[in-house]
Amino acid sequence: MRIAIDAMGGDAGPAVAVQGSAAAIQAWPGLAIDLFGPGDQLSNELDNLPRHLAAAGSRLSIHHAPMMIHQHQRPSDALRRGGDTSMALMLAHVAGRHADAGVSAGNTGALMALARRALGTVADIPRPAICTAIPTRADERCYLLDLGANVDVTAERLVDFARMGEVMARHVDGLAAPRVALLNVGSEGTKGSETVRQADALLGALGAMNYIGFVEGDGIFAGSADVVVCDGFVGNAVLKASEGLARMLIGRVQTTFESHWGSRLVGMLARPALRRLKSELDPVRYNGASLLGLDGIVIKSHGSADAIGFSYAVSRAVQEIRRGLPARLAAELGAQCDSTQQEQW
Amino acid sequence: MRIAIDAMGGDAGPAVAVQGSAAAIQAWPGLAIDLFGPGDQLSNELDNLPRHLAAAGSRLSIHHAPMMIHQHQRPSDALRRGGDTSMALMLAHVAGRHADAGVSAGNTGALMALARRALGTVADIPRPAICTAIPTRADERCYLLDLGANVDVTAERLVDFARMGEVMARHVDGLAAPRVALLNVGSEGTKGSETVRQADALLGALGAMNYIGFVEGDGIFAGSADVVVCDGFVGNAVLKASEGLARMLIGRVQTTFESHWGSRLVGMLARPALRRLKSELDPVRYNGASLLGLDGIVIKSHGSADAIGFSYAVSRAVQEIRRGLPARLAAELGAQCDSTQQEQW
Repeated sequence: MRIAIDAMGGDAGPAVAVQGSAAAIQAWPGLAIDLFGPGDQLSNELDNLPRHLAAAGSRLSIHHAPMMIHQHQRPSDALRRGGDTSMALMLAHVAGRHADAGVSAGNTGALMALARRALGTVADIPRPAICTAIPTRADERCYLLDLGANVDVTAERLVDFARMGEVMARHVDGLAAPRVALLNVGSEGTKGSETVRQADALLGALGAMNYIGFVEGDGIFAGSADVVVCDGFVGNAVLKASEGLARMLIGRVQTTFESHWGSRLVGMLARPALRRLKSELDPVRYNGASLLGLDGIVIKSHGSADAIGFSYAVSRAVQEIRRGLPARLAAELGAQCDSTQQEQW
Repeated sequence: MRIAIDAMGGDAGPAVAVQGSAAAIQAWPGLAIDLFGPGDQLSNELDNLPRHLAAAGSRLSIHHAPMMIHQHQRPSDALRRGGDTSMALMLAHVAGRHADAGVSAGNTGALMALARRALGTVADIPRPAICTAIPTRADERCYLLDLGANVDVTAERLVDFARMGEVMARHVDGLAAPRVALLNVGSEGTKGSETVRQADALLGALGAMNYIGFVEGDGIFAGSADVVVCDGFVGNAVLKASEGLARMLIGRVQTTFESHWGSRLVGMLARPALRRLKSELDPVRYNGASLLGLDGIVIKSHGSADAIGFSYAVSRAVQEIRRGLPARLAAELGAQCDSTQQEQW
């Protein structure tokens, strides 16, 4: 198994991607990784791998890419001038079947545009959706999509998202009949936007899926559904707000214990539990969003993820490779998608 | 100061509203409350007030309302048949200037419809927005609106929301120049839906407001803005998801300490800090959403709020009364609103 990595995408530079790749290699026997970025920078990072990761170096190869896509570069600009960037060369590697999947922590819009051009989409999906797993109360996961690739969508596109998310949950997570829901402002059929009510009618008529109707925002974390579908504006707002709230609450947990547990004894006793709690609340553990609907596997890592977070994104790619996700999508979505769907940057 | 309360709205029955009203009376000298609901039920609740709240009984009056609006009753049905319900009679009391504000924990859609008919709206606002204060990292608050009353909106309505939220933050919270932002999927001007980009252009041209452009979802909790504006679908999804996440995280904090701090000593030491933490994370503390844009003050309490939570909603009403919010809105929004705005149930 071989994964191509854009090592230049993250906020903190290539060290995170290189160390995260090494950690993923140690977790997955048989995994090899091709790193894309400026050759001298990447060699330097490889030479400086922490001792506990050094053994992974033999399964990491460097592929020189002189340029990089910048965080605020427009997708159109990336398409026009991004040719010899680490992101584009990584995707060309995947498109040429030299790797089974690609991972980048870079500019999402550019990644979406370049990946779509390099790999194309499955079935009649006009444009991939961004999909990630959200932790739920029952210690399970809920796939939420779209997270920002499709801002103004039709009811038909919401149906596409539902079908893609359902294939993901069934094949990658092994659920027999994933519960699929539409995000809405109320659980009654009379509520919500015109588009959502149309999508509800279409999904209800589909028959082939365990469609459970509407859920509200709290249903995502309550574990009420395995797949929750919404447009990219709503999904992005919900995901980012949740990240912001989690950061705020983790900060408050720490402050509470620091200010009230001054004594040395209690501080010592509390430390392991606090550490464990912080790791449980850490959104990085769920890092790795899929560009779902591509004819290939591309995972977006959070730009601010650390090496451990980046390794989770690589693990996400491993799981999708093992389950042959694009082939499953192609087979199951087949020619059933409506080709009149609207799309928009 | 006198506030009218629909005592029949909450999920747990009238005890919460009656005890919450008593708690608010103890917090605000000079406050009297008119309770609406079945006379015998309310008398019974008054007779059974906990000892520490019993003194408030003399400033609580009962107004008999034989019927109630149900949680899943449609707004159209509430308008047609809701005449002698506790919600409608409470609103008529406010409309007749017998009370300075109204509070209900009942069906939001029905409350919006009945309040709009009973009180009308200020300036040319076609339909109020639902607005609540969200706690931010800096221990400040951010007003988020709309939270579900306006699902499909035009750019002009988003501008209305921005102006109403700005008046709220300036007059009720006393901020000199509240930072107003539009919620979007990116902070660059080229991103987002057509409607949001139009609203951005309109707000940028307005001049009279400290408009700071786009924020993403995490900006709400980071304290990046004092007022964040979005359509009711997005706001509702963000708010409900945040409530769900907060509940999940509070549960995990408890589980972590219960499972790892088995010893009696540590459990005893941890208890006060845990209690404090739970109260700090508790969304109920920020209970009370304003129906902003009415020609009158109406506060929606969360249906699942307890008595303390309900008293916060009453306190929210007290603050808006003191600052004369509807008159401020009428004066500042004046005749500047576009009367061609689209509206929708």
